[in-house]
Amino acid sequence: LLERKNAILVDGVILNGPVADSEAGEKFVEEATKIIMEEVIKKAADVTEKVCEWQPPEKLKALLDLELKDTGENHQKLLQFCRDVIKFSVKTNHPRFFNQLYAGIDYYSLAARFITEALNPSVYTYEVSPVFLLVEDAVLKKMIEFIGWEEGDGIFNPGGSVSNMYAMNLARYKYCPDIKEQGLSGMPRLVVLTSDECHYSVKKAASFLGIGTQNVYFIKSDERGKMIPEELEKQVLRARKEGSAPFFVSATAGTTVLGAFDPLDEIADICERYGLWLHVDASWGGSALLSRKHCRLLHGIHRANSVAWNPHKMLMAGIQCCALLVKDSSGLLKRCYSANASYLFQQDKFYDVSYDTGDKSIQCSRRADAFKFWMTWKALGTTGLEERVNRALALARYLVDEIKKREGFQLLLEPEYANICFWYIPPSLRNMEEGHEYWEKLHHVAPAIKERMMKKGSIMLGYQPHRGKVNFFRQVIISPKVSREDMDFLLDEISSLGKDL
Amino acid sequence: LLERKNAILVDGVILNGPVADSEAGEKFVEEATKIIMEEVIKKAADVTEKVCEWQPPEKLKALLDLELKDTGENHQKLLQFCRDVIKFSVKTNHPRFFNQLYAGIDYYSLAARFITEALNPSVYTYEVSPVFLLVEDAVLKKMIEFIGWEEGDGIFNPGGSVSNMYAMNLARYKYCPDIKEQGLSGMPRLVVLTSDECHYSVKKAASFLGIGTQNVYFIKSDERGKMIPEELEKQVLRARKEGSAPFFVSATAGTTVLGAFDPLDEIADICERYGLWLHVDASWGGSALLSRKHCRLLHGIHRANSVAWNPHKMLMAGIQCCALLVKDSSGLLKRCYSANASYLFQQDKFYDVSYDTGDKSIQCSRRADAFKFWMTWKALGTTGLEERVNRALALARYLVDEIKKREGFQLLLEPEYANICFWYIPPSLRNMEEGHEYWEKLHHVAPAIKERMMKKGSIMLGYQPHRGKVNFFRQVIISPKVSREDMDFLLDEISSLGKDL
Repeated sequence: LLERKNAILVDGVILNGPVADSEAGEKFVEEATKIIMEEVIKKAADVTEKVCEWQPPEKLKALLDLELKDTGENHQKLLQFCRDVIKFSVKTNHPRFFNQLYAGIDYYSLAARFITEALNPSVYTYEVSPVFLLVEDAVLKKMIEFIGWEEGDGIFNPGGSVSNMYAMNLARYKYCPDIKEQGLSGMPRLVVLTSDECHYSVKKAASFLGIGTQNVYFIKSDERGKMIPEELEKQVLRARKEGSAPFFVSATAGTTVLGAFDPLDEIADICERYGLWLHVDASWGGSALLSRKHCRLLHGIHRANSVAWNPHKMLMAGIQCCALLVKDSSGLLKRCYSANASYLFQQDKFYDVSYDTGDKSIQCSRRADAFKFWMTWKALGTTGLEERVNRALALARYLVDEIKKREGFQLLLEPEYANICFWYIPPSLRNMEEGHEYWEKLHHVAPAIKERMMKKGSIMLGYQPHRGKVNFFRQVIISPKVSREDMDFLLDEISSLGKDL
Repeated sequence: LLERKNAILVDGVILNGPVADSEAGEKFVEEATKIIMEEVIKKAADVTEKVCEWQPPEKLKALLDLELKDTGENHQKLLQFCRDVIKFSVKTNHPRFFNQLYAGIDYYSLAARFITEALNPSVYTYEVSPVFLLVEDAVLKKMIEFIGWEEGDGIFNPGGSVSNMYAMNLARYKYCPDIKEQGLSGMPRLVVLTSDECHYSVKKAASFLGIGTQNVYFIKSDERGKMIPEELEKQVLRARKEGSAPFFVSATAGTTVLGAFDPLDEIADICERYGLWLHVDASWGGSALLSRKHCRLLHGIHRANSVAWNPHKMLMAGIQCCALLVKDSSGLLKRCYSANASYLFQQDKFYDVSYDTGDKSIQCSRRADAFKFWMTWKALGTTGLEERVNRALALARYLVDEIKKREGFQLLLEPEYANICFWYIPPSLRNMEEGHEYWEKLHHVAPAIKERMMKKGSIMLGYQPHRGKVNFFRQVIISPKVSREDMDFLLDEISSLGKDL
């Protein structure tokens, strides 16, 4: 009644008290949350559920009512959408989802993610994100400690690809600060060096940053996928001889397909010798730093100038949670990226504005990605995170041993990490000579089995051709919900799906 | 028992059934969700709650136990963290949070966000994100319709800043595709044109992309903050005369501080005349397209080559929800950005791989940001979204009228959109001559009131100096929970907090 009384008409709109129906809205969120709890969270541990409910694109479009209309739908219909979206989505938290470099469910991270979604913060100034800025700082400091630096700087980004770009641009700024203002026109040709097994984002970064993909020199890696330091040195010398300006080496700790680790210590020697910025793309492999048993994979990482490390992968922080860590603690990151927007980074605030770290970013609004990882770390402690890494890698070891024992399975190489690459060889090929026809036929085996597993929904793992090798499976082990029984099931299932091929 | 029986030891790890305690984890998520429901969602409608519980950085650090330790904490302690994080975070969904270009709570978006957090998808291939890829496509198509293009392309990005970068790089690729491979070294100096009122991300983009901030030519805007087309033409001619290569104009629809809209139609004429790519940064103002009453603010936008539009701002989709929309439908976006990673974008999949749109992105893993906006649109319909825009702008109108009526308040300019810029002039200054001393004193008024409002927690709005004007308040109206009573309260509160200054 009070609201009615106060109503006035402005521009054809009746302005009274708040119009949004909060009670109905809250009820809707509650109902949706129940569905999420039942259909996603409680089923995440259940291997009898399907990993995916496959529908081809055109059919799925018809099943879902995607069209956006003039009038809204009622809550009942909307809750049905929620159920359908869940039903037809891939269950990346299923114990038998091995398709990407992330998997599984972490309950602590998930609770933290619900909190940030509800609070809807943007992390640029202490004024609007006091807690999340402090949390980000605490997490970065701890990650820096594990890299082995005494101090450092950093920022969370929307993806390892973006972190790699940040690093490349930062190195360029360090190499020649004038480029920030003057640009690359008229500058000598900059050269980036990385292995031929690196993530494709290095190439994307070179293109985006105006360096050009031709100026990425790909260093040969050995048969295990590790960069060959002597080849790196050769390419540095070649670049110098050409009169171009090599400035940035991106080594990889945990390559995408093979899970290989470049020899960081030897690469660091070369970078020091030639004054090159050493970046380590440890997006995937960085998490091994938390394991006293496996951290030797990254031996030498403390000599890097920058590191990309994604806790959303092996440490299950949820997509996305990606840190770029920088050894410099003189403010290089801020000098490189800042634009000093006066409406956001006012200098006459009543608190210490050094806490307003948003100007280190290429983003303006930025999500509180560090918080979910902080919550998991708080819940498990370093030892709990270490156990997860150790367990995943022990399971990988177990699978490798099984593959070696079983007829019809062939390992591509001894893995260093959680990627297990192997062929399944159906009975029809087992006695064939390994000639052109054999490889041609084997090339079609993995895609055919993949189609069958997805249509059945029993399991998901990826395949790809790589370095002249025909299509093979890449099994990635992460989640603590995965058991040796799942490893056995995986091999049984592949045999069963592919035995007639 | 079965698990015990199957246990084997590998690398010092006992491998048996899944080790994660799912029941305890589920219970934790349930408990945390209850806290979120009570402390965030149900309080979002309550003006008697504080907008923020201010603590200075050092004190807040001491209050929160941020340190990450070797051992984990129990659930009780973790739930207390959840409460504390919520308590000390700014309530951006409070009806009296007016500090940024986002605010409020949308229950439908929120439910969708909980779903994506629980499902944890990454949107690159149909295989792993069937629903979310189709949803993104549906939302992009609808946004393209509102821009007025017959067809087009697009992608959701982590922020309007990133969208602006995408557009600049895309325009550069169109201008000279060779740059992707060859880079900018040896190329003529590229020039970007934008108004002096543009978002700072245009400058950040020029720096990041290797173009250089000096090669951003800032076009004078008029007293309302709108780019002056004649000045644009002059600068284009200047760039040409210098022998440099102007290729990209970024017009702004809804500037950050003043909420001004550049005259798109006239700017488009100039872009056509000189063959320049017209990008419209409608990150903030794009949402007016949904209002038949206010869409004229963006008259001419259909002539743009690309548009950045953030539904997380006026349309409350939650941070982040940002589309880059591109008029080209010949696959330019993909040609510009693709790297064809063979482990992800296999061409021998069993479904139509044109649905694997991830290679249009500079990111590898990418969040399902379109889905939350889709859910809101489904719930409210276009008319519901239109009503929100109309109501916010009517409230802005109301506030402007009140400011004009009240003693001690002075409007900077008639707003075009939802940003209302004004000074509060305390009694001590009301009879002072508007000379140096007056402005110097007034400059300190807004920061002083801001400090008081934050310490009290009654309201949050931003202030800044701008274009030679001393610190003034910028009120931003978005949420449908905001009422005219809140507008009245705002002015009363500012008077009350600042009357002794």
